[in-house]
Amino acid sequence: MGSDFTTMWSALEPIGRDRGSGGYRRFAWTSADHELREWFAAECAARGLDLTEDRAGNQWAWWGDPDTTPGVVIGSHLDSVPDGGAFDGPLGVVSALATIDALRAQGAAPDLPIGVVNFVDEEGARFGIACAGSRLITGALTADRALALTDADGTSMAEAWRAAGRDPSALGPDPEALRRVAAFVELHVEQGKALALAPDGTEDLTDSARAVAIGTGIWPHGRWRIDIPGEANHAGTTRLADRHDAMLGLAGVVQATRTYAAQRGCVATVGKVRVEPGGVNAIASHVTAWLDARGADDGAVRATVADIEQEASRAGATTSEESWTPPTTFDGDLVTRLSGILPDAPHLATGAGHDAGILATHGVPAAMLFVRNPTGVSHSPAEHAETSDCEDGVVALTAVVADLCRRKDDAR
Amino acid sequence: MGSDFTTMWSALEPIGRDRGSGGYRRFAWTSADHELREWFAAECAARGLDLTEDRAGNQWAWWGDPDTTPGVVIGSHLDSVPDGGAFDGPLGVVSALATIDALRAQGAAPDLPIGVVNFVDEEGARFGIACAGSRLITGALTADRALALTDADGTSMAEAWRAAGRDPSALGPDPEALRRVAAFVELHVEQGKALALAPDGTEDLTDSARAVAIGTGIWPHGRWRIDIPGEANHAGTTRLADRHDAMLGLAGVVQATRTYAAQRGCVATVGKVRVEPGGVNAIASHVTAWLDARGADDGAVRATVADIEQEASRAGATTSEESWTPPTTFDGDLVTRLSGILPDAPHLATGAGHDAGILATHGVPAAMLFVRNPTGVSHSPAEHAETSDCEDGVVALTAVVADLCRRKDDAR
Repeated sequence: MGSDFTTMWSALEPIGRDRGSGGYRRFAWTSADHELREWFAAECAARGLDLTEDRAGNQWAWWGDPDTTPGVVIGSHLDSVPDGGAFDGPLGVVSALATIDALRAQGAAPDLPIGVVNFVDEEGARFGIACAGSRLITGALTADRALALTDADGTSMAEAWRAAGRDPSALGPDPEALRRVAAFVELHVEQGKALALAPDGTEDLTDSARAVAIGTGIWPHGRWRIDIPGEANHAGTTRLADRHDAMLGLAGVVQATRTYAAQRGCVATVGKVRVEPGGVNAIASHVTAWLDARGADDGAVRATVADIEQEASRAGATTSEESWTPPTTFDGDLVTRLSGILPDAPHLATGAGHDAGILATHGVPAAMLFVRNPTGVSHSPAEHAETSDCEDGVVALTAVVADLCRRKDDAR
Repeated sequence: MGSDFTTMWSALEPIGRDRGSGGYRRFAWTSADHELREWFAAECAARGLDLTEDRAGNQWAWWGDPDTTPGVVIGSHLDSVPDGGAFDGPLGVVSALATIDALRAQGAAPDLPIGVVNFVDEEGARFGIACAGSRLITGALTADRALALTDADGTSMAEAWRAAGRDPSALGPDPEALRRVAAFVELHVEQGKALALAPDGTEDLTDSARAVAIGTGIWPHGRWRIDIPGEANHAGTTRLADRHDAMLGLAGVVQATRTYAAQRGCVATVGKVRVEPGGVNAIASHVTAWLDARGADDGAVRATVADIEQEASRAGATTSEESWTPPTTFDGDLVTRLSGILPDAPHLATGAGHDAGILATHGVPAAMLFVRNPTGVSHSPAEHAETSDCEDGVVALTAVVADLCRRKDDAR
């Protein structure tokens, strides 16, 4: 691994890390996030890149002038889920910066500008909407709706912006920022173990041809909020017959989630709940549960959610959609061109959402590269990628950018 | 209602109140708790009572010298469950202070000292163990165990004591404080609706003979912590077959709790859970659930918990007892004497734990008075008692204290 890569990785390691779990808690517009943004700005400044921010606060660092000619953008995000791993997001950002270093070490003189991006709030861990930074600039998420979102402490995104010294009225779509992007290639650690398994299904971490894959698309996926009503009362003195316990509704929703997802070949998860009032001797007066559902087929995902919604309604619950992303197929020409550059790389679709997917559905040619994940574990402190595979990722990304930035007659 | 009572009630009303729900969040050793303790000290000082604290921080205010002759103690607690009501605890403390005023207005010259107590941390809302203040001074809860308890933010009771400017090494059993108590009568709002129902089962809030009841005992009750394991992973990319989702274990535990409690005629509740890591797109790696179980028969409660524990173990969960209080029968002589003073008052046992119960099981003659609760709602902002019933409570408590403090040959 290049020494710059290692130095960058070490600098990021302690930021926002929970000492107990070893996992990361890098949430949008917190002090950890601020530190990550400052780190990114300093790395870009050290490389002489021109840093700009768009109207959502996404950071773009340019080598060359994208207002003259749109450029090739690489990068990812630096925020995390609660107790997330070190690779999800940062691997793409660090690899992008290392790619700039590699191109320069090769004496490259790119014909097109090259950009490195750090997207804000990709995980949606704080305000509940994933890819908030890219959704905002594309208009997929309106500023009004975003600013009214609240975190677990009741702080709105507008308040979080103000607390971070920002003007929430600046938030909004930013077509200019998007016009600068001729193509976006997001490198990301794989979040399953497809690359760790040989075609015959046995585990094989030695095949260097499977260290990096080309992402072809993203499953349709969405998030729903399920509000389950109850009635507050004393756990010791209220007869079972007189109770209206919201926790029983939650139990039914959780079991329905697994049952119906399995029936339709999707995945669906309740990973976040809020129980009110939350006392050991108090019957739950309200439970809020968040549902995440995805699958290869959008009809099946929709049907799964409808089944869960019906089960929830039996407990008097209401279900509301917080986000929905239809299936994304990455830009065909771009994927074809990546296949030419990386002829051995397998092709993969993923169940995880990414900023590349949001851009792809809003007119920006986008694709992804996935770096092998030996265990497939993701969104966990145990998430991992081998150093040699990360190195192969930088080599692949460097080859991709070098090629995409070359003006040639056969360019798409 | 006496003007002193109304003034005290109004002074307490805003302390620790959540503006959104209207409920109270008065947790031990927080700033709200501090404000309540300062209020209590000032009310006692205004009445010329001598305020002392025992080794757990419970506040005792004396009219007369209990080191010469043990005295009659009244009072309750000022802390609350999350989003609790205004009456649970404070009604007993305010009524006790109003009783002192009433005795003085009557020109009473009690033969025995009279004490007013404010017990610390009765609800256990912050550190998970109810009646912590009385358990500590009786030795039912050891200082070592108490100091190591942690709240939801990971703050230990030892740290909370230090943050409140206290020395945690002072914490421990306090037999001297208990020796001063000849009898303890705790007035409390009823937490069910037995007094609101006429003997024929119809609702009747007009019968003044049912405004106040004599408490005869407390159901056995306990709290258990259930730790349900899972494995953190990405909600979008992990196949259902590869998952180990702790939320499914929780769903089973919640349903088993209702099923087995109903089978055995007990009440059992899961009202507090902690889901880790708690991200919308993260499979739960661990769920902690707290179980509260009670019933008239201790064997039935134990059997209910054993059934739930077995169900939990199927999800790989471990169940540990956080507290267990056997059935409490209040002091027979004291209850008989209260019946003589309040001949019309019904007799009631309760499913809720109280400091009076802890003292009763540690050699202190104790009993309770319950003030009618028109809806039976408890541990909720909707908890209520009619003003005229509260007034009857003060009249009853005044009669009780006047009688108990009289030296007479027929005294027990």
